[in-house]
Amino acid sequence: MWSTGRASIDLNADLGEGFGRWRLTDDDALLSVVTSANVACGYHAGDASTMRGVCAMAAERGVAIGAQVSYRDLAGFGRRAMDIEPGDLAADVAYQIGALEVFARAAGSRVSYVKPHGALYNRVVTDEAQAEAVAEGVALAGARLPVLGLPGSALHRAAAAAGLPVVGEAFADRAYTEDGALVPRREPGAVIADPDAVVRRSVGIATEGRVTTHRGGTLAVRARSLCVHGDTEGAAALARRVREGLAAAGVAVEPFA
Amino acid sequence: MWSTGRASIDLNADLGEGFGRWRLTDDDALLSVVTSANVACGYHAGDASTMRGVCAMAAERGVAIGAQVSYRDLAGFGRRAMDIEPGDLAADVAYQIGALEVFARAAGSRVSYVKPHGALYNRVVTDEAQAEAVAEGVALAGARLPVLGLPGSALHRAAAAAGLPVVGEAFADRAYTEDGALVPRREPGAVIADPDAVVRRSVGIATEGRVTTHRGGTLAVRARSLCVHGDTEGAAALARRVREGLAAAGVAVEPFA
Amino acid sequence: MWSTGRASIDLNADLGEGFGRWRLTDDDALLSVVTSANVACGYHAGDASTMRGVCAMAAERGVAIGAQVSYRDLAGFGRRAMDIEPGDLAADVAYQIGALEVFARAAGSRVSYVKPHGALYNRVVTDEAQAEAVAEGVALAGARLPVLGLPGSALHRAAAAAGLPVVGEAFADRAYTEDGALVPRREPGAVIADPDAVVRRSVGIATEGRVTTHRGGTLAVRARSLCVHGDTEGAAALARRVREGLAAAGVAVEPFA
Amino acid sequence: MWSTGRASIDLNADLGEGFGRWRLTDDDALLSVVTSANVACGYHAGDASTMRGVCAMAAERGVAIGAQVSYRDLAGFGRRAMDIEPGDLAADVAYQIGALEVFARAAGSRVSYVKPHGALYNRVVTDEAQAEAVAEGVALAGARLPVLGLPGSALHRAAAAAGLPVVGEAFADRAYTEDGALVPRREPGAVIADPDAVVRRSVGIATEGRVTTHRGGTLAVRARSLCVHGDTEGAAALARRVREGLAAAGVAVEPFA
Repeated sequence: MWSTGRASIDLNADLGEGFGRWRLTDDDALLSVVTSANVACGYHAGDASTMRGVCAMAAERGVAIGAQVSYRDLAGFGRRAMDIEPGDLAADVAYQIGALEVFARAAGSRVSYVKPHGALYNRVVTDEAQAEAVAEGVALAGARLPVLGLPGSALHRAAAAAGLPVVGEAFADRAYTEDGALVPRREPGAVIADPDAVVRRSVGIATEGRVTTHRGGTLAVRARSLCVHGDTEGAAALARRVREGLAAAGVAVEPFA
Repeated sequence: MWSTGRASIDLNADLGEGFGRWRLTDDDALLSVVTSANVACGYHAGDASTMRGVCAMAAERGVAIGAQVSYRDLAGFGRRAMDIEPGDLAADVAYQIGALEVFARAAGSRVSYVKPHGALYNRVVTDEAQAEAVAEGVALAGARLPVLGLPGSALHRAAAAAGLPVVGEAFADRAYTEDGALVPRREPGAVIADPDAVVRRSVGIATEGRVTTHRGGTLAVRARSLCVHGDTEGAAALARRVREGLAAAGVAVEPFA
Repeated sequence: MWSTGRASIDLNADLGEGFGRWRLTDDDALLSVVTSANVACGYHAGDASTMRGVCAMAAERGVAIGAQVSYRDLAGFGRRAMDIEPGDLAADVAYQIGALEVFARAAGSRVSYVKPHGALYNRVVTDEAQAEAVAEGVALAGARLPVLGLPGSALHRAAAAAGLPVVGEAFADRAYTEDGALVPRREPGAVIADPDAVVRRSVGIATEGRVTTHRGGTLAVRARSLCVHGDTEGAAALARRVREGLAAAGVAVEPFA
Repeated sequence: MWSTGRASIDLNADLGEGFGRWRLTDDDALLSVVTSANVACGYHAGDASTMRGVCAMAAERGVAIGAQVSYRDLAGFGRRAMDIEPGDLAADVAYQIGALEVFARAAGSRVSYVKPHGALYNRVVTDEAQAEAVAEGVALAGARLPVLGLPGSALHRAAAAAGLPVVGEAFADRAYTEDGALVPRREPGAVIADPDAVVRRSVGIATEGRVTTHRGGTLAVRARSLCVHGDTEGAAALARRVREGLAAAGVAVEPFA
């Protein structure tokens, strides 16, 4: 992707993560920056009205709509790993995609990819059974949707085995170990706080497919999408700086899908 | 429908009304009798795995799949009327249809109609705002799905106004008043307990478009579908007798959709 | 209360109305102003951890803890009236009180009153059956807890009939009709936006038991508590001004309980 | 317990495991057999009305009421292990106990013990952090309630460390390994199907504190309670045979609490 002609990259962020009376993400601001919106589908966040509204806004701005699928856990915001039966997980994933598809279609768009959320995202990096279940759920939904996730994850292997396209993403604001894993959040330096560094790393990933590790080495990162975080103070502002930095470096920011 | 050639009628029943560990309806038995399955979509009953299983069984037997949409109320089984905002109700209806569509498609079928459940069903007989919201939700789902409901209801008016086909249903085991309303369940004689009477009434509705009222008069009932109940002891057995009685009277029992 | 000696009044506000990852009210700021905290109990908002935290803060600051009971409706934030069976409503009310009591006790305090939330609050102003159910639920909880609500409401009649103490509240930021009802929010002038007016009305209610109606008349308002709103921008700041205004007028601001 | 005078044992079973419209256990039949009722508290099953009804029946028959606490997972019936934060788990446990306490008190009884359900029960056999969280939750509830569980479990260690009484239970219908663990359900012979064998094992546990292992050895089982299962066909009938067998062997069947 970055080898031929002009480099391009997608920017994805979690959106629509309110529920009922509650709001979390500044969807309006984020949708003016990102090119792919990971829309919550009701299992960890996102009621039907919120989903409808976010899809309408995304479609209007040409932002790709992805199903951000999760464990069924509103109280825990999908951040608690669950030992769910694979068959149930596959059905849960398909259910969420189907529900979102209605609103994407009604807005003149469609669900164009799937990305697991929170604890499920982390679990399917290594859990083969749950990874296969997620892939099965995506396949059930029928449109051979690309699966956005960590390059080299069990999920990507399972998705590829199921005949689904896979798209790797990178995190410009997270430190990487030498072997390509993210430094756990609880460790010092896990999150890159300096906006300039985040922009610099974003450009490096987009143009060279590399990022500096937490020990100063160089890591190859094959990512067609950069994940920017939406649920923190100043998230949209940081995302905007990343986008501007990429543009300044001649990188086309556009949906992968 | 009953005016030309051989009479035909559809038999619909609520199915898939378990949730997680709980079961309610004998889906296997009912699916061998009815021609249309009103499948619970997760709001009053019906988790994703249950929906998937019911759709697979229905598709295999050629039973039409309908979305049985409801208020969001697992604790109350959708039997408690709610003063929900029309916009939220429309989105909730669309969400449920979309979720079910995934499983219907995965089974090689599709959602071919929509029927409101419980308190929502009763509410939209007269509540114009909620009726319009349900119709809007069905329209959002995009496929111009027929709306199954009470003939003459606010829902049918709203659906027709939204350009959706409407299909009337009748209840062979419920007493009717002279003006076509159902006698409320709390009144004596509201439910017809005698199976022979239920069969007789079913045949009358299917072949002549008439039913005897609770005062002995004759009422015209324009119904292309008969609703049989699935959640009571012996429900499947009664439904089977109705089906056999219809067949014996020369009525074709087939999906309306 | 305002007839003998120094006038006193309670200030109550809704608190703990987050859920899981979501926050709504600035509990810390509000708890430094109000004397009674209406704590959400999990039905419209308020997970167990939130309840525990709010009770600990309230107890530490000597703020009375009340159970803010609601319909079971997280998606609708308890703002949608429901036709729930009285027996179920009574049990739901008792359940919520019991759950909160654990955290109040653990913090060295106790649940000292009950106040319905949202649509339930409005419904039991006139709905006798649901009002009796709420009173029954409070009575089930066993401690003869006072019921905070609208003076003259069906709830207050039902509570009194059940042998429960009743405490009237007034709204300094809401317009009143001549007959003591609140002007509906959708009408112009329903909410008093001017902070000075809100303070002035608070003092009038506390010291004279009167408030000016929306047509300029004078209305007797028998209230031992003033409700201040917690879920809007600047809510805590307005509440603080009310408290300071009351203090400046010589009114003791203290829990009614 | 079995060493001095007449042997005695408690019989406990899970009850009240319906939700809303759904029923699971034959509570009426089980309450005429067991001496301790593990009542579901709303997290995996058990709505408020069900809890109220079960507590009333249990109190009337002198059956001890225990809080059957669970992960928050209605869709999974509490059978899916969750990586929940210990602080949240402690609060969840306390919440459930408090909610049940209202109904136990209203029925003239009280919550007299706590037993984790399903996946939580299994998890706290070895997970120290979650075991401590459950113990903390029980301690929060304030009454130094006994914790019913597997002898030697992390939960029992944590409960003892928190100053809570612990009560061991045994399973007469489950095969034991030589080191006192239960043979996993997926292995052949894990569940003892022969009623006579179950009765014989029950008597052995109650009178001698021993049970034959799956390899034919003898295992010391220090249990003051026997768990009988309530959610299978014929469960109440088997429980009745166990009770009669114990009585015939001169064992007093009575609550431990």
